[in-house]
Amino acid sequence: MNQDVRTLTLAEIAERLGARLEGDGGRQVSGLATLRDAEPDQVAFLANRAYLKDLPGTRAAAVLLAPGHAESCPVARLEMDNPYLGYAELSRLFDPLAGRSPAGIHPTAVVADDVRLGEQVAIGPQAVIESGVELGDEVVVGPGCVVGADSRIGPGSRLHANVTVCHGVVIGARAILHSGCVIGGDGFGFAHDGARWHKIAQLGGVVLGDDVEVGSCSSIDRGALGDTLIGDDVKIDSQVQIAHNVQIGDHSALAGCVGIAGSTRVGRHCMLGGGVGLSGHLTIADGVQVTGMSLVTNSILEPGIYSSGTGAMDNAQWRRNAVRFKQLDDIARRLARLEKAGRSG
Amino acid sequence: MNQDVRTLTLAEIAERLGARLEGDGGRQVSGLATLRDAEPDQVAFLANRAYLKDLPGTRAAAVLLAPGHAESCPVARLEMDNPYLGYAELSRLFDPLAGRSPAGIHPTAVVADDVRLGEQVAIGPQAVIESGVELGDEVVVGPGCVVGADSRIGPGSRLHANVTVCHGVVIGARAILHSGCVIGGDGFGFAHDGARWHKIAQLGGVVLGDDVEVGSCSSIDRGALGDTLIGDDVKIDSQVQIAHNVQIGDHSALAGCVGIAGSTRVGRHCMLGGGVGLSGHLTIADGVQVTGMSLVTNSILEPGIYSSGTGAMDNAQWRRNAVRFKQLDDIARRLARLEKAGRSG
Amino acid sequence: MNQDVRTLTLAEIAERLGARLEGDGGRQVSGLATLRDAEPDQVAFLANRAYLKDLPGTRAAAVLLAPGHAESCPVARLEMDNPYLGYAELSRLFDPLAGRSPAGIHPTAVVADDVRLGEQVAIGPQAVIESGVELGDEVVVGPGCVVGADSRIGPGSRLHANVTVCHGVVIGARAILHSGCVIGGDGFGFAHDGARWHKIAQLGGVVLGDDVEVGSCSSIDRGALGDTLIGDDVKIDSQVQIAHNVQIGDHSALAGCVGIAGSTRVGRHCMLGGGVGLSGHLTIADGVQVTGMSLVTNSILEPGIYSSGTGAMDNAQWRRNAVRFKQLDDIARRLARLEKAGRSG
Repeated sequence: MNQDVRTLTLAEIAERLGARLEGDGGRQVSGLATLRDAEPDQVAFLANRAYLKDLPGTRAAAVLLAPGHAESCPVARLEMDNPYLGYAELSRLFDPLAGRSPAGIHPTAVVADDVRLGEQVAIGPQAVIESGVELGDEVVVGPGCVVGADSRIGPGSRLHANVTVCHGVVIGARAILHSGCVIGGDGFGFAHDGARWHKIAQLGGVVLGDDVEVGSCSSIDRGALGDTLIGDDVKIDSQVQIAHNVQIGDHSALAGCVGIAGSTRVGRHCMLGGGVGLSGHLTIADGVQVTGMSLVTNSILEPGIYSSGTGAMDNAQWRRNAVRFKQLDDIARRLARLEKAGRSG
Repeated sequence: MNQDVRTLTLAEIAERLGARLEGDGGRQVSGLATLRDAEPDQVAFLANRAYLKDLPGTRAAAVLLAPGHAESCPVARLEMDNPYLGYAELSRLFDPLAGRSPAGIHPTAVVADDVRLGEQVAIGPQAVIESGVELGDEVVVGPGCVVGADSRIGPGSRLHANVTVCHGVVIGARAILHSGCVIGGDGFGFAHDGARWHKIAQLGGVVLGDDVEVGSCSSIDRGALGDTLIGDDVKIDSQVQIAHNVQIGDHSALAGCVGIAGSTRVGRHCMLGGGVGLSGHLTIADGVQVTGMSLVTNSILEPGIYSSGTGAMDNAQWRRNAVRFKQLDDIARRLARLEKAGRSG
Repeated sequence: MNQDVRTLTLAEIAERLGARLEGDGGRQVSGLATLRDAEPDQVAFLANRAYLKDLPGTRAAAVLLAPGHAESCPVARLEMDNPYLGYAELSRLFDPLAGRSPAGIHPTAVVADDVRLGEQVAIGPQAVIESGVELGDEVVVGPGCVVGADSRIGPGSRLHANVTVCHGVVIGARAILHSGCVIGGDGFGFAHDGARWHKIAQLGGVVLGDDVEVGSCSSIDRGALGDTLIGDDVKIDSQVQIAHNVQIGDHSALAGCVGIAGSTRVGRHCMLGGGVGLSGHLTIADGVQVTGMSLVTNSILEPGIYSSGTGAMDNAQWRRNAVRFKQLDDIARRLARLEKAGRSG
């Protein structure tokens, strides 16, 4: 892609990252790459021991690494204790999107008369901002987005193209909402009269803290009574479903395709692997990690790593084992009988 | 959120719900809340014995409850046999969205010349209504929606923002389609010539009955030949995938992240838990419930509750057990040998 | 649905399909249906032995079938070795969408000044084409789509309504992107400083080969460094999530609700069943098939069919077995002890 090229000197980078530079501070670089792929005008990084083998042969202008790996580096070094963190910051310095979206309202956007706009707000073509909305300073609303009535979006937040924020949603500062995500659709609530369903109007809202990111095509449903609550610094990947009145604690991260049923409370600093499912009305403690595609049907009250399921195997082998799963209780009972017979025999 | 406040007297509520009022019928209330959270101008409800403990301390103006729980209620009572149903109806009376969306076509909407519109239709900004579409009385099409050529949407239906209804789709009365959902995208059909795929045009449509709700970011694919059929009063949550030529019987409910493969027929009054997957070409009887994240690979011909999978456990414990799953057939065979040896020994 | 009717003679169809016609070549037909449902002006097909029972009673004008099934056919025959392939081609001949979308830019579309357009491009109402975009000949961009800055879309590609292509994405020829899908949203990358998350800007792009199809509401995330790569003739169903830097080989097919974690490489001619999950950083060989809802946590280096999970059973039976799963390692150890005791006894 034809991205806007930004150029920095190694000295400038060292200063921005708080890294110790060993090499020519005046050298100019214009990008970031892996140790293997880096060109001589790019910076590389070593954050995982598995890539140490690529260090001696790198053609990068400089490598961001921990002091302990300095010796085998053939080029300039940017030393810091957490080079992965340095990589993160450097990636943002070279982000071609940073600084795009000049402020202003595109003439095709439809913005209600009573909307309150902060400084330097950008609203893209075909966007719709309904009545009563408040957008903080430097908010960017992408093309095709809809922000529903009475919603508030905090300063520095960015809605990529075709995002939907429904009515009465509150979003904190510096949120990043990716295309196709929906914040504040109705929760799934119905009463049954014995014959048919009666809709329960979802009268609550959704509140997102500061620094929340939501991936493409994810959905966070509004509360039935009271709000669905997403804490500060919560990171949500693509294709995630968060049901009504769920609460997610600060700093938790949810990988792709996670589904969380209604009213479940997830603690702080939790990590849910891809495809994990949590049943409704559970409590998940702080610091819990759940591995990919696990099903959680009971509350987890202690931090730790939790798992369910079984990994894929050859289909013929799997067929033999899966059919035995249906006999498992019988197998256990027969084993107990044999043990008893052995002891008494 | 700053929602439009509606005020009703307890007598009015009792009449609307068919509830027996014990208390001051002239008292005005303006909202609904849980027993714990209710303010003195709100109505609370008791529909689940688990919340009985919150009844004595409630500050609500009145509580909607079953006659059997009347005694320990410290405030006015609205008695009815199914208070959860009462709660559903009351929630709709206090819905701030009800009555919004004044009829009319926003000047930025693009509506084909030959579209047939019922009475009191509302079409939001940036919406697109293609040629040959028919919208019934009081249909609301939200901002950014696209309704494809020749589709028909029944009276009282509401499309929230950024919904896509593809061409030739038929939607019954009072449908609610949430943001980001797609009705009538192509089913997944290809013929293989031994080397590559050849697309099978999806010539069928999608037909939704009356009173269907579809959640955010869900997709219902159009049929290959013949239509994908969703019955009356079917409720579909967010992030659900329904493949081509699936049929869902009346009054069934599908929780979030359900996936149903092609041509499977689900009966009436079925309930599929979150993340359930149904293989293609199955028949699921009326009245079947499947618990969350279960995999159904065979038809189910009797009503009842069905499950698969295993719940999450501590990761170290799980690793020990999961590796044994691959030995399960071997374990069963060895057990049988031991039993045989015991009998012959 | 009121679709544009196209009429062809059997002789014309035989010529287009390279089929041998046995019957009246001048007979006109105007559609395609199953053996059971076909009317006398429609062609039916027999591609699966399971439907052989419907052949004698069909009312179709002609049946597309393999030479071996000619005898029991009561009507005209279109014989070819792979009738399913013939059905695919015939379905496209009767596709009412083919030929719609006359070229031209709708006056409500917002197209940047520097966009390069091929011949016969169609851009629908409310679409947004950002700066630097290149659209090849006969590209169709549906209503409400957004194509981000500097993206390139190859000739003959079609974006259905409300598709989002983010900035810097490259799409080959003849792509079909269904409504609600998002190509090029940010991958899920963050560095942790011990207390909170720091975003890693996703500087790579997404490259789709030729003849790729992507289903409704699916998401393909852009690479962190380097691109997410989707090969030629890859078919992706609805509700699929493909994470950053994934690579999918040519001719592979992914069914609905599949999720693939970051940097995993899937080979050529692979087939992933509905709801399959692949962990990150894996290598999957060419020709691998994974059955529905399986979890793959290790690389698969040999072609074949792979599976995990267990099928649904009666809930009471399942409860008894699932609880035993947690004892499985214990069961295996106790069995080994019994065997040892038996041998030494």
